[in-house]
Amino acid sequence: MKKRKLEICLSPLLYEPEEHKGSIVVIIDVLRATSAICTAFEHGANSIIPVESVEEARKYKERGFLVAAERDGFVLDFADFGNSPFNFTRERVEGKTIVYSTTNGTGIIKMADSASEIIIGSFLNITSLTGWLENQNKDVVLFCAGWKNRFNLEDTICAGAIAERLMKTSLYSTICDSALAALDLWTLAKDDLQGYIDKAAQRTRLRDKGLDDCILFCFTADYTDKIPIIENGILVNNI
Amino acid sequence: MKKRKLEICLSPLLYEPEEHKGSIVVIIDVLRATSAICTAFEHGANSIIPVESVEEARKYKERGFLVAAERDGFVLDFADFGNSPFNFTRERVEGKTIVYSTTNGTGIIKMADSASEIIIGSFLNITSLTGWLENQNKDVVLFCAGWKNRFNLEDTICAGAIAERLMKTSLYSTICDSALAALDLWTLAKDDLQGYIDKAAQRTRLRDKGLDDCILFCFTADYTDKIPIIENGILVNNI
Repeated sequence: MKKRKLEICLSPLLYEPEEHKGSIVVIIDVLRATSAICTAFEHGANSIIPVESVEEARKYKERGFLVAAERDGFVLDFADFGNSPFNFTRERVEGKTIVYSTTNGTGIIKMADSASEIIIGSFLNITSLTGWLENQNKDVVLFCAGWKNRFNLEDTICAGAIAERLMKTSLYSTICDSALAALDLWTLAKDDLQGYIDKAAQRTRLRDKGLDDCILFCFTADYTDKIPIIENGILVNNI
Repeated sequence: MKKRKLEICLSPLLYEPEEHKGSIVVIIDVLRATSAICTAFEHGANSIIPVESVEEARKYKERGFLVAAERDGFVLDFADFGNSPFNFTRERVEGKTIVYSTTNGTGIIKMADSASEIIIGSFLNITSLTGWLENQNKDVVLFCAGWKNRFNLEDTICAGAIAERLMKTSLYSTICDSALAALDLWTLAKDDLQGYIDKAAQRTRLRDKGLDDCILFCFTADYTDKIPIIENGILVNNI
């Protein structure tokens, strides 16, 4: 049986739309976008509209939507709350459509529009996600959102963790150096995840702003079985 | 004392000219460009002119230059030899100016032209290179050439090896996740370098073409003390 191809893209700048055409693309932004999105669906959110510009988010707010919006860690004044997963409580989000404003999230979704599906990955939904992937007979690209287009450790080790599970099934093969590196970094990190993450740059950035309370949570496996998926540019729950 | 900044750029696509302005940029392309360039200077080459296009290389050949040129592992018909370090023997290169045609080398040199210096790094000159860097009071960027703009393991672990030596001096600090990842991958790789490299994609690519004879050599530390440097677009020996 021909094995499915597994690849990892370490930064949005390294994504190759032509190369990855027809693959399932898993977007990973552990601190904090994809963790927050998984949390929102676990808490009953109906759908999430990702928007790029602050202006767009503001217009949705004026039309009565619930808006989560930050720039560089600061909640925008008109928004209902910021991008921490802890903000997406059941009381706030159950049954609701949320507008989620991110700096690069929308760009990534556009970039990946030649994919067969675009789904949301994080530690929070890792078992459900990998189980679902195994049931699709398709190549997989794990797309690390990074930070301002840079490589980052937290997304890479999450991609490594997902890759490890997929490779164990023997359904996939990889000759992608990025995947080999991510698998190795995950192997190094997994026995002391907190210690490993402590050294990562994003951790320092969040700590400087007092936003680091959610970090441990974002590295928790299987908080949810939800798999958010993009349909017509909007995130809905896949299962 | 303010520490110097150490950063690693994992692919040409991730290089940030503004961010790295004024730094020393070390270009690393272990298999095989920077290893070949170090070998050429060790064997007495006078200078190396990097050119991008096949046409340009052909014109130099017509003007009587010694030309090393390959595309995707195949020697161009008009060239004197290909890009393997084993081609740059003393008999061939001593006292000569060599035209070296690479797919992305010239692009990288242009990209880095806001750097304070652009030098050539490989395992072959690692001790000399790191010693020289320590004597310059400047930030350092280790620039992995990658393969067709992709991340690759061999350049990353070489960058990790260089970074390890620099960090040991206590002259440098880094908050760059790419540097932390490269350091970790080097730590994993160094006790069984050949085994580690065996799994890398470039190794597979070279093996497919029977070009893998130079791989072990390219991972040999300190074959030379030469440090090639770019001066007016041309590579000369720095020491």
